[in-house]
Amino acid sequence: MTKISPFAPKHAPDVPAIDGVRLATAAAGIRYPGRIDLLLALFDPGTTVAGVLTQSKTASAPVDWCRQHLAHGMARALVVNSGNSNAFTGKRGTEAVQRTAEAAAEAADCLEADVYIASTGVIGETLDASKIAVHLATLAQAAKPDGFAQAARAIMTTDTYPKLATRKAEIEGVEVTINGIAKGAGMIAPDMATLLVFLFTDAAIEPQALRASLDPAVEETFNAVTIDGDTSTSDTLLIFATGRSTSRGAPRIADRNDLRLASFRFALHEVMHDLALQVVKDGEGLTKFVTVKVTGAKTKKAARAIAKSIANSPLVKTAIAGEDPNWGRIVAAVGKAGEAADRDQLAIWLGDILVAKDGEVAPSYRERQGAAYMKGPEIAITVDVGVGKEAATIWTCDLTHDYIAINADYRS
Amino acid sequence: MTKISPFAPKHAPDVPAIDGVRLATAAAGIRYPGRIDLLLALFDPGTTVAGVLTQSKTASAPVDWCRQHLAHGMARALVVNSGNSNAFTGKRGTEAVQRTAEAAAEAADCLEADVYIASTGVIGETLDASKIAVHLATLAQAAKPDGFAQAARAIMTTDTYPKLATRKAEIEGVEVTINGIAKGAGMIAPDMATLLVFLFTDAAIEPQALRASLDPAVEETFNAVTIDGDTSTSDTLLIFATGRSTSRGAPRIADRNDLRLASFRFALHEVMHDLALQVVKDGEGLTKFVTVKVTGAKTKKAARAIAKSIANSPLVKTAIAGEDPNWGRIVAAVGKAGEAADRDQLAIWLGDILVAKDGEVAPSYRERQGAAYMKGPEIAITVDVGVGKEAATIWTCDLTHDYIAINADYRS
Repeated sequence: MTKISPFAPKHAPDVPAIDGVRLATAAAGIRYPGRIDLLLALFDPGTTVAGVLTQSKTASAPVDWCRQHLAHGMARALVVNSGNSNAFTGKRGTEAVQRTAEAAAEAADCLEADVYIASTGVIGETLDASKIAVHLATLAQAAKPDGFAQAARAIMTTDTYPKLATRKAEIEGVEVTINGIAKGAGMIAPDMATLLVFLFTDAAIEPQALRASLDPAVEETFNAVTIDGDTSTSDTLLIFATGRSTSRGAPRIADRNDLRLASFRFALHEVMHDLALQVVKDGEGLTKFVTVKVTGAKTKKAARAIAKSIANSPLVKTAIAGEDPNWGRIVAAVGKAGEAADRDQLAIWLGDILVAKDGEVAPSYRERQGAAYMKGPEIAITVDVGVGKEAATIWTCDLTHDYIAINADYRS
Repeated sequence: MTKISPFAPKHAPDVPAIDGVRLATAAAGIRYPGRIDLLLALFDPGTTVAGVLTQSKTASAPVDWCRQHLAHGMARALVVNSGNSNAFTGKRGTEAVQRTAEAAAEAADCLEADVYIASTGVIGETLDASKIAVHLATLAQAAKPDGFAQAARAIMTTDTYPKLATRKAEIEGVEVTINGIAKGAGMIAPDMATLLVFLFTDAAIEPQALRASLDPAVEETFNAVTIDGDTSTSDTLLIFATGRSTSRGAPRIADRNDLRLASFRFALHEVMHDLALQVVKDGEGLTKFVTVKVTGAKTKKAARAIAKSIANSPLVKTAIAGEDPNWGRIVAAVGKAGEAADRDQLAIWLGDILVAKDGEVAPSYRERQGAAYMKGPEIAITVDVGVGKEAATIWTCDLTHDYIAINADYRS
């Protein structure tokens, strides 16, 4: 049904194994027969976990489960299915999670509390947990260290390509690896289907320090593609740290302010940035990848709000789809953000082209320059709002006919 | 280019003259040659005015002008052009407004301060005020009492039909008339082009009492179609009260709490409700008219926020376009509103069909019922969020291919 995104990577990145992580997938027939829709990840004893979950008031049953168990910070298994999000499924939804956790705990020989669960897909339909449970023992047997490409595929819904990233870092001179997989789909905008992100590392980091490493990176990556935690019922980002690098001499880090985490944090940010942009670049029906940068704002928060107002504006997004340098819509989006901005100091650039300054069209600007720029696949909009020194960047995509086609048909 | 809205009225309503109001229109060639794009309304001496203007931080030059002059509350002329919104036009924009006010004051033989100005159309292009000024003397000569149908047409941009409404009321037994014209276009959603609404009455009401009559009606009508004042750079709603009904014995009302205003306020609300729904029903590219009602909320504000979250959700709007009873997206939209809601008490109706209750699909619900309902042109979504007693209604439309076509092409 869906065209592959024009930004799909030509070759999937080569993602190495992570010591202490084993993976297996299956076609469990949760929604479509024969489609790989189930992932089991097993972690060595001692693996720590941290995560960020949706702030939705109608969060799914698996999100409830993860929230309840994240506090203790240890993990031995992750079960993810696509095809059914087990959201808004009432008591039966909670029972399905419980059933899945029991089966996974038995298969992984661990506590139920060490099992993490995520589901993505249709909302409001009962998830038949037996379809998952029946596979878990076999998957646990079959799990291997090198299954990341297949794992990324198993969690896809309307994604048109699997999303993987990997980076190396060092902790006290010992190399550690961070891998990540993600699924996005849904419009890269105020409403989306579900964002799932799973990160894996052999670094040895206690849960609190792991969480402290995660938060600033989330803010600058997944929360900067306007797919933030407060949107879907199922958004889940988890990082699992097996600690197996200690066997090669790496230290175990407990203090969130430990400077030895610098390289790890940098690499973690890079993996997440990479995945977040892959998610945007697979926005439903997109033809353009758009970077919106706001400078000259009073606060970081204001800069972000203005950038999101531009990035989420259907009028801006459709103008980009139509390759129309309609910067008036950018002005309107700045105005409606409700944050401080000086209309008569406003400046706007499309790429390097100064379009407007001092609150009106720039004398040097020629429409044909803007029109030529808009034909490119990657569009950068920069707006200086003229009231301060703070800046923020948001990534998004255009709003096209194909978005409508995909979303007017998705479920039926 | 654009198809006429399926909800366009078969016959324009028959709108009577208002004693003290004269109207004239012209084709001033502001954007397109030969298109009626200029309206001059003249008011008898003693006409009062009240209004509500956009809260945009990048408001247009005409909005600045109106804001500056509304305080004194008297009006003799209104000049409206379509084709160019004179927004984000810097110093030249302010000069264009000044020039227009001067010419209108001369034509109407009044103070510049008694002239009100509104512009709608493209943002960021210099408005050549001489194109307007050159017509005003002739228009003042030609102005007649019965030009409302033509006036409604002159202010259109991408509207597919002119929007008019009229109601009668009585003040101390004397009949008064309220007429209104409006233009919407732009998506009936978070971003829109410009909302212009002009109301005319022969009632005699002092400015403060007039404004006090306006505010609650705005809240329940134009602010309930998610086209509220904080969105476009040019949103303008003005009411002119000529007071000419005093010649037939009507009293002049100064006190905002005067109970003799009851009938007037009811009729004003009806005119505005009528116009607001006409605006929604001309939403760009729409195929469905949608009413979203939220009950069981903690506060009125929360009910409204949740209803807007549903009404503004691209995923909900595209599902409606696709005639898909995808109530899971409604649940997600409730969740992301950030207002109190009890997931496990949530109930959802499509029309009269109970779709979900107690936080899961209703046992009685059958998908084919929902699917059949979604084929109708008017869709009513009701959600009870189970935490209180407050309710709110928001009107909107679906999000279709035609919306994309219209907005990806509008300016180029």
